[in-house]
Amino acid sequence: PYAAYRNAKLDVWTMFNMAAAKANAVNLGQGFMNFPADKMVLKAGSDAISDPVSAQYAPPRGLPILLSELAKRYTASLKTNIDPAKNIMISSGANEGIFCGLLAFLGLNTNSEAIVIEPAFDQYTPNIIMAGGKPVYVPLRVNSNLNPESHNISSNEWKLDCKELEAKINSNTKVLIVNTPHNPTELEEIAEIAKKHNLLVISDEVYENLYYDGEKHISIASLPGMLDRTIVIGSVGKMFGVTGWRIGWLIGGEHLITACIAAHTRTTFVSPTPIQLATAYAFQRSVEFKFFETQRAQYLERRNKLMKLFDQINLPYSVPKGSYFLLVNSSRISIPKDFEIPDHVKERGRSFSVCYFLTVKIGIACIPPTEFYSEENMHLAEDYVRFAFCKSDDVFVETEKRLSKLV
Amino acid sequence: PYAAYRNAKLDVWTMFNMAAAKANAVNLGQGFMNFPADKMVLKAGSDAISDPVSAQYAPPRGLPILLSELAKRYTASLKTNIDPAKNIMISSGANEGIFCGLLAFLGLNTNSEAIVIEPAFDQYTPNIIMAGGKPVYVPLRVNSNLNPESHNISSNEWKLDCKELEAKINSNTKVLIVNTPHNPTELEEIAEIAKKHNLLVISDEVYENLYYDGEKHISIASLPGMLDRTIVIGSVGKMFGVTGWRIGWLIGGEHLITACIAAHTRTTFVSPTPIQLATAYAFQRSVEFKFFETQRAQYLERRNKLMKLFDQINLPYSVPKGSYFLLVNSSRISIPKDFEIPDHVKERGRSFSVCYFLTVKIGIACIPPTEFYSEENMHLAEDYVRFAFCKSDDVFVETEKRLSKLV
Ligand SMILES: CSCCC(=O)C(=O)O
Ligand SMILES: CSCCC(=O)C(=O)O
Repeated sequence: PYAAYRNAKLDVWTMFNMAAAKANAVNLGQGFMNFPADKMVLKAGSDAISDPVSAQYAPPRGLPILLSELAKRYTASLKTNIDPAKNIMISSGANEGIFCGLLAFLGLNTNSEAIVIEPAFDQYTPNIIMAGGKPVYVPLRVNSNLNPESHNISSNEWKLDCKELEAKINSNTKVLIVNTPHNPTELEEIAEIAKKHNLLVISDEVYENLYYDGEKHISIASLPGMLDRTIVIGSVGKMFGVTGWRIGWLIGGEHLITACIAAHTRTTFVSPTPIQLATAYAFQRSVEFKFFETQRAQYLERRNKLMKLFDQINLPYSVPKGSYFLLVNSSRISIPKDFEIPDHVKERGRSFSVCYFLTVKIGIACIPPTEFYSEENMHLAEDYVRFAFCKSDDVFVETEKRLSKLV
Repeated sequence: PYAAYRNAKLDVWTMFNMAAAKANAVNLGQGFMNFPADKMVLKAGSDAISDPVSAQYAPPRGLPILLSELAKRYTASLKTNIDPAKNIMISSGANEGIFCGLLAFLGLNTNSEAIVIEPAFDQYTPNIIMAGGKPVYVPLRVNSNLNPESHNISSNEWKLDCKELEAKINSNTKVLIVNTPHNPTELEEIAEIAKKHNLLVISDEVYENLYYDGEKHISIASLPGMLDRTIVIGSVGKMFGVTGWRIGWLIGGEHLITACIAAHTRTTFVSPTPIQLATAYAFQRSVEFKFFETQRAQYLERRNKLMKLFDQINLPYSVPKGSYFLLVNSSRISIPKDFEIPDHVKERGRSFSVCYFLTVKIGIACIPPTEFYSEENMHLAEDYVRFAFCKSDDVFVETEKRLSKLV
């Protein structure tokens, strides 16, 4: 099944990181932080790697101290008892965790299908195919009464049509991947559908700590009867601002997690002990340092700064109520006729072309959100460009300067 | 394809680590070090994780500083130019590296086959199946003139019959996994066969620094024309005695490594930056500290200590010329009639039963080498038990005491 994906195109991260480096662009593309990691987190790292326990294999499920920290955290947030020895597995990054979930639950039957809600993280599709399944797509849609090409809208206006979702389900459908945030009513409807059709939900909640404007993170696993059919995905990289650390976790019903551990022992066997211990320390110290509250306030400020830059040049966007990405409507951006776009970019559509222009000519690297869509739904994102705001002030200052070239 | 493996039995590591813990056995089973990691290595770790570069994503290929250290090392050992930007990829442990190699080169055609030389690391088979291929096995054989049940033999006497190997190759055969050490003549014959039948060789060389009694490590990739069809697998865990670190590397022809990187971005995306940097520092400092020379001398001493314990009770073994495992012939060990062996152990054969008896009753955990064989060749290992000697002196002292219960 990997063969089906093998000759796929260059991944969008490599493509735009390379273009950014070559053009000396400020990089608002990939969601890595360009500012130093928090001191508390770095100290957790150095304390951990010097500890003798870090040197040798952790158990396949994960290091007990980290399992126990996560159990405390998710028992509180999911409002149900999370047993560290039953309901949790540590993975080698959220990505490998998702892959384990798919390996464990697709491909048991031939013709298994997994439903992907779009926009979607670009790893879902290859991972579904590699696990022997078939991806089926349902896109979020913006109400046609709104005018996102001329006015800002709330990211909450990107809505799932649950009738459209349910229409895609058949007897081969086994898994539904949900990429939060979704609004609470939507989550309840999705949960009902999952229960009705006996689906496993993989709930990618790596941005669970980043929400703004009075929103709150709600996990679908916290809804009645859902823990037993949900695998919640978390990530130290997104939670603590250290994308290089590559530790993730899976929270879910015992039988689900057991199956994921079996898959995990066959992909990476076990995950790095030093970073598991570092993550445990970071969680332990996060309360005293008010880490998450401070982080959220900082990201809100970064979001607002970036939005302001687009207000100034009158480009409308979706006001993000969570995560650290701003979707800007690019209808009004026109690419000068004399600007040359290589064929391998042009053939991937307008969003790619605009991003290439912004990266190479304007000097601001961004990501085409069409990459987060299947071919059938790509048109819904052709007029958007994605900017990450997990970036430092000097990047915003430079972005402001360069955006002025656009008007 | 994962489905085919999904209901596989409990992995041998979990089984015997759990039994060992329960029985309070000294653990000579899994190959983890029970002594503290080297101070230079731990210092490399804490220097690395405190460095700002460690906090964010490394490139999919790997962190440049580590690529460059590995390029120096393998340019020297393979006697051919290894380009850090072409011939190397960093993986999330050797295991994930092997899996990437298999993903990239099996399953392109249906019915692809991979040849596995036994004894083999127990991950090869599931990884081959998960990549959509079929494993085909060729075992090493001990000359029938020797009497391994009554006399020590050299591990070099476990020989590959290259005619037997070649007879297993057909037009579906794509990959050959070689688990070194092999003797030089054998390697040359394998290389000729690989070239003749256009096979990719995955050469698992994670124990490349551990060889004894005047032996030397030779990589099949160093033989004429082989780099372009070989992926050499290495591991920081085995090389620096830190099995918890989970960083591995792939060295090979540019087109091979490119294909592996594409697979890698779909399994773990990228590998942990702090540990990549730590590994680079450990390599840089290894010369000044004479790290590998010291390590080899220490392992030789450990090997000799463990061999002596079996000499004392007159149990014959294969004198290991490399790695850190001792294969003891268990023909003379009889399990007392009144010792109860659970069905799930008994049904896995005599080697499992003897190991269970040694772990639970004698208090010395070990591993049944039948786990490293397919069903068709398992009988070749039924009369062996594997002991790891990457262990501290007090473990050997305690092992000596407990072995006396056996006579
Ligand atoms: C594969 S990059 C990980 C996700 C991310 O950081 C992004 O969406 O930019
Ligand atoms: C899966 S355990 C890794 C290999 C090893 O250490 C062993 O063979 O004991």
